[in-house]
Amino acid sequence: MNAILTLNAGSSSIKFAIYAGTDDPQELARGQIDNLGPDARMVFGDEKNAIDAPDHKTGVHQILQTVAPILDGRTVAGIGHRIVHGGVEFDKPQILDTAVLEKLAALKPLAPLHQPHNLAAVDAAITAFPDAVQVGCFDTGFHRGHPFVNDTFALPRRYYEKGVRRYGFHGLSYDFVSGEVARLYPDLAAGRVVIAHLGNGASMCALRAGKSVGSTMGFSALDGLPMGTRCGQLDPGVMLYLMDQEGMNADQISTMLYKESGLKGMSGISHDMRDLETSDAPEAAEAIDYFVFRIRRELGGMAAVLGGLDALVFCGGIGENARNIRARVCDGMDWLGLAVNADANDQNAQDISAGPTKVLVIPTDEERVIARAVAAQV
Amino acid sequence: MNAILTLNAGSSSIKFAIYAGTDDPQELARGQIDNLGPDARMVFGDEKNAIDAPDHKTGVHQILQTVAPILDGRTVAGIGHRIVHGGVEFDKPQILDTAVLEKLAALKPLAPLHQPHNLAAVDAAITAFPDAVQVGCFDTGFHRGHPFVNDTFALPRRYYEKGVRRYGFHGLSYDFVSGEVARLYPDLAAGRVVIAHLGNGASMCALRAGKSVGSTMGFSALDGLPMGTRCGQLDPGVMLYLMDQEGMNADQISTMLYKESGLKGMSGISHDMRDLETSDAPEAAEAIDYFVFRIRRELGGMAAVLGGLDALVFCGGIGENARNIRARVCDGMDWLGLAVNADANDQNAQDISAGPTKVLVIPTDEERVIARAVAAQV
Repeated sequence: MNAILTLNAGSSSIKFAIYAGTDDPQELARGQIDNLGPDARMVFGDEKNAIDAPDHKTGVHQILQTVAPILDGRTVAGIGHRIVHGGVEFDKPQILDTAVLEKLAALKPLAPLHQPHNLAAVDAAITAFPDAVQVGCFDTGFHRGHPFVNDTFALPRRYYEKGVRRYGFHGLSYDFVSGEVARLYPDLAAGRVVIAHLGNGASMCALRAGKSVGSTMGFSALDGLPMGTRCGQLDPGVMLYLMDQEGMNADQISTMLYKESGLKGMSGISHDMRDLETSDAPEAAEAIDYFVFRIRRELGGMAAVLGGLDALVFCGGIGENARNIRARVCDGMDWLGLAVNADANDQNAQDISAGPTKVLVIPTDEERVIARAVAAQV
Repeated sequence: MNAILTLNAGSSSIKFAIYAGTDDPQELARGQIDNLGPDARMVFGDEKNAIDAPDHKTGVHQILQTVAPILDGRTVAGIGHRIVHGGVEFDKPQILDTAVLEKLAALKPLAPLHQPHNLAAVDAAITAFPDAVQVGCFDTGFHRGHPFVNDTFALPRRYYEKGVRRYGFHGLSYDFVSGEVARLYPDLAAGRVVIAHLGNGASMCALRAGKSVGSTMGFSALDGLPMGTRCGQLDPGVMLYLMDQEGMNADQISTMLYKESGLKGMSGISHDMRDLETSDAPEAAEAIDYFVFRIRRELGGMAAVLGGLDALVFCGGIGENARNIRARVCDGMDWLGLAVNADANDQNAQDISAGPTKVLVIPTDEERVIARAVAAQV
């Protein structure tokens, strides 16, 4: 029997899942390594153990040791990798042969904080399983059909040609959730749908007939909604201010915008919505207020892209669990046909609508999208 | 008899107008100096003449010579100045005494390309008319009542305290146009109105009961809609890319984003909508497409801030004259109650609505707002 492994490598974590079979892959287990580096730990089943995983290569080896007993003699036929950037070219998963890997390495300047880690995990996986098919699944791929107006910035044209475009991210999540919407609510399959992926990273995607036509994220994973530690939408004049008046260089600004901003920066307390929701500090309340406000504002923008709205779908850690956030996003949005059934919302039910526009909660599953992509190749 | 002079100094131009009387000031004349520097010219009445105006000080003196015959013996009792930045403190016009001028000078880091020019014109006017009341009118003032969520970015909190906020601009224009809306359409005075100020600079303002509650512009005059030469909304990741991968410094980036982007950068042809509308180049069409798309997307965002929309008002050079732009902004926007009467629109009529949400064209007049502010002080 065969098995499929999925790897989802961030800068300091690697999520993984193992699937049995290659036709209709069934999940056997999933887990993750957090805090890659001196304090790395493996989260698997009910256990959290300190492990020796100073980097991505050792991390992948730790994962292989962890899943070996689960494999139970199955052969790893394919390994699927979440890769943040597929550039202009890749709108679909790709077998990671040498030519493709060279193209992906050339995209590092577009995603310097993520692409190198993704590719380091691929290298480690190839070394460990030289006979397995390696498949790359791109966070940008789902959005590559965007019309030009939603793919460009108003910069001198040469930048568009250089690849400075609004790629959009979280594509694996949108792929999964839009598939679930079409499966569970066939009437919506041809409609105008906004999916709000609200987790530690957060973005929104506008879909017409299941295709992405707009996203709140742009060139990088910084733009759009505020996130756990990322700033979201920022006036370019603020960047000039940070350079000119604060004398900050690119590394300092990057660290601040990626790691010290968002909910964490505003609250001064935590990047985690659960911490903010249980805090009495006015700064925590203000950070939540801002998060909700920006979601509402972007929801209006996404509705404009779509010419109205048939459904709003919440997913991601916050979207699937934070009932107060969902209620507040929809509050007073009857001009878009939105209203929330309080009881259904309190229970994290799938359909929480109380108005003509559907409001849904659909747990996302990026690993499953990766496993399916691998299954299609082995 | 008394007169009022208004001065509106940009980086390379000074607009001016002269008013008779100080109770209900009546416009006598208006004009402007373009291309301050070696190629300066005075546009006044039907004439365009090359003049010697290498800087703001000489420009103001040229204006005084030009208006002297119009003054016809009247005393300049007050001079009103458009000043881009009033900071956190100034929500209303101010008499420009030494204390206020010191505070305004301290705001230069927030608007390094505009505030110094504005204050240079004030200096020149004080020298020329030491006995006149000098009044400053701030582009930011109209927006100072914004709620916190619309005033902040998701940066570490110290930046909000330092003044890194979403000030919003074009406040004099919004002040005038919202006053006209209330005067001409009393039913809308308490309603949800979006004003689109579309000129060489462009922004949109969301008003509830005549008060600004949101703007597409933020900290600087770069954010929001694409403009003649300015980029509008830009992913902060693009700024990091320009620093890291292109090796650009703050001056180079600033020049590109303020002077080489927007319609000009996208089209490679012109910053002027009239040139683009008469061009056959696909790049011109794409620049217009993007301009319209971003207005529509931001209109959705502004509607979300307001919880729906009772009226959309166009003003500014493009808003008042570009019928195709107005028609395209509203096309398919029936989900917001928007529809345009084609005949009325072709005639640049005031009310061009064909749906339940009013669509209006109201010429703006920043100079009149300044003159009124002066009249209130003399």
